[in-house]
Amino acid sequence: MKQMAQPDRRTTDALITVYRDGLLNDVVPFWINHCVDERHGGFTFALDRDGGLLSTDKYLWLHGRFVWLLSELCLQVERRAQWLDLAEHGMAFILAHGFAENGKMYFSVDRQGRPLRMRRYVFSEAFAVMAMASLSRVNGDAALADRAVALFRQMLEYFTKPGWIEPKFDPRTRPMRGFSTPMIILSTAQVLREAAGASLCREWIDRSIAEIETVFMNHEHKAVLETAGPGGELIDTLEGRTLTPGHAIEAAWFILHEAKLRGNDPALRKTGLTILDWMWARGWDPEYGGLLYYTDVHGLPCSEYWHDMKFWWPHNEAIIATLLAYALTGEETYLEMHRQVHDWAHAHFPDPEYGEWFGYLHRDGTVSSRLKGNQWKGPFHVPRMQLYCWQLLADGKRTQ
Amino acid sequence: MKQMAQPDRRTTDALITVYRDGLLNDVVPFWINHCVDERHGGFTFALDRDGGLLSTDKYLWLHGRFVWLLSELCLQVERRAQWLDLAEHGMAFILAHGFAENGKMYFSVDRQGRPLRMRRYVFSEAFAVMAMASLSRVNGDAALADRAVALFRQMLEYFTKPGWIEPKFDPRTRPMRGFSTPMIILSTAQVLREAAGASLCREWIDRSIAEIETVFMNHEHKAVLETAGPGGELIDTLEGRTLTPGHAIEAAWFILHEAKLRGNDPALRKTGLTILDWMWARGWDPEYGGLLYYTDVHGLPCSEYWHDMKFWWPHNEAIIATLLAYALTGEETYLEMHRQVHDWAHAHFPDPEYGEWFGYLHRDGTVSSRLKGNQWKGPFHVPRMQLYCWQLLADGKRTQ
Repeated sequence: MKQMAQPDRRTTDALITVYRDGLLNDVVPFWINHCVDERHGGFTFALDRDGGLLSTDKYLWLHGRFVWLLSELCLQVERRAQWLDLAEHGMAFILAHGFAENGKMYFSVDRQGRPLRMRRYVFSEAFAVMAMASLSRVNGDAALADRAVALFRQMLEYFTKPGWIEPKFDPRTRPMRGFSTPMIILSTAQVLREAAGASLCREWIDRSIAEIETVFMNHEHKAVLETAGPGGELIDTLEGRTLTPGHAIEAAWFILHEAKLRGNDPALRKTGLTILDWMWARGWDPEYGGLLYYTDVHGLPCSEYWHDMKFWWPHNEAIIATLLAYALTGEETYLEMHRQVHDWAHAHFPDPEYGEWFGYLHRDGTVSSRLKGNQWKGPFHVPRMQLYCWQLLADGKRTQ
Repeated sequence: MKQMAQPDRRTTDALITVYRDGLLNDVVPFWINHCVDERHGGFTFALDRDGGLLSTDKYLWLHGRFVWLLSELCLQVERRAQWLDLAEHGMAFILAHGFAENGKMYFSVDRQGRPLRMRRYVFSEAFAVMAMASLSRVNGDAALADRAVALFRQMLEYFTKPGWIEPKFDPRTRPMRGFSTPMIILSTAQVLREAAGASLCREWIDRSIAEIETVFMNHEHKAVLETAGPGGELIDTLEGRTLTPGHAIEAAWFILHEAKLRGNDPALRKTGLTILDWMWARGWDPEYGGLLYYTDVHGLPCSEYWHDMKFWWPHNEAIIATLLAYALTGEETYLEMHRQVHDWAHAHFPDPEYGEWFGYLHRDGTVSSRLKGNQWKGPFHVPRMQLYCWQLLADGKRTQ
């Protein structure tokens, strides 16, 4: 690996402290203290500001995310018995209650694990693959690694076999491709590769990045489209014009991470930086700061109600993407962008009283909801950012 | 009809001016000038602030709503050729492009009328019934009135025949009833009754109100539940606790309207007033004024992102409900509530530059989106309020 750019010593140390202490002393303990269901297994992620339980329903995709996180803590930080025990506790629930008879995974089940919702998406599968892959590396369970590969193959099949993922729009009238498909395949394959299926994963990582480059990156409009026509055409409707800057910026760092793993590969680096540059320009709110949730390709109004709210996770993704962009390029612009989004996020999202981050702010940065977890927000984007940025900065120090 | 309470002469005249002029000189012209597709038929409701087109997609349920409105203008205001022509223009599009082969109606089609989205709900059907019923009264088309009755029967079947409306939650684990079912049946039957199917409609009006009273009105919590267990039990989850005050207040005035038609029926009036009182207390924002979109039965955080935004339509429904409550009771409290919500709404929603109302405000009343129409907002709640309140006040003057 080529030497990577690093902020000055003082800045680096200060940032490491923020990320590491935030992860180990705040965010991970918040969830461990409040979400574990000792009685029925699994986790209850719907939590109030102070960790109070808002619902006993259990969300499968968040189970995969937490098991992945706990396993990565064991791999990247230290092999703590508590983390490994909890990861296995979560995996046991996924295996016992996550799958319907036809093999498709549920979105949610009740406290006892009885089926509640099945959705058309494959996010439960994707994060179960990641959880199985990372956990198998900690506990050496080769059968679990095999199962991860099998589930990844099954998930790929859902995207290609008709009838599994029903399109929202009639494909005879309006064929559409979704950016979330290559995104989730890319991200799942990157995690799975560390455990098993290296050549299968490499193939799908390359295919997914190529699909992002050729279909979803629209050079005319300098934007990553969230949905596009079969050949990448802009669909000029409310839905077709809607951009999700935080989502594209997440893809940017997946691709930059791939560039890093491949010796700072210049082509991949260029793709990742282009996405980051475009979508930062599309998403950063010049009036109040922070990243807008949705913007329109032509600057027209978005139809989704929460378009101008500030959600926690786009900020987590942008903090990773800008820091990684700086590490790979040494360009001060990215260090400045990192400072900008890191500072805005840390000034507005963390809960000074009960810890962890608020998830939903108004455009002006005031808190809209005090909840810490629900069916969408769990122990994932915040701690993944803290772990990734801490390790990136620590690696940089070691190689300098 | 018993004599109804009326604000003092000056207030009454001033309110009539606001509603009548808003309807005839602002809102109806805005839509007529911008949404009519002369080339392919039907209407394009996705409009920017100045009436600029945001999408050529066509939303069937909004077609039903606009045809209903235009027909009611002919019935309640005057028989204007332009209104009748446009109502028939809209109905022609619904009949030509609204129905799938299995008889279910689409949610949206493209500009040429080709199928785009089919949703599980029956709102396209409900508003097509209302459109057919009201239009048949204007143009004397008896076959259209029959078709309205047949479509109403079909819609009722969807609620009872398994497989048509797939429940979101597995009914084996969590059987749930939705408040929107009796609401939409009640509202559809009230409109249809004026044209045809009187005894069928009367039966379903009574059944729907009884279902609201026995299942969804929760006296322990003084709240109308949006979803409930089979016997009206509160489901203590994020979804089960979520109240939609504006929706319940809409039901309140449907029931108060029924009370009015039945000679100020005391039992119906009590039901309507109870719902209004409960849900006003649940929804009115003591900090910024206006009605919150969602609140939680126990005051816990809501999970829907836009819970604290101020949408146009709950205000329209509350303006009707409070004015009607005052008319039926003469209680000053309701006149005060009417003034409160009328003033807040008129101070924040109307667009002073291009007319019509903004739809989506932040909690503090600032504008979140400048759009005037999309797949949800069209010519319905604002003009229905203006027409209803104008006629109510004008009737009151005539009988005094």
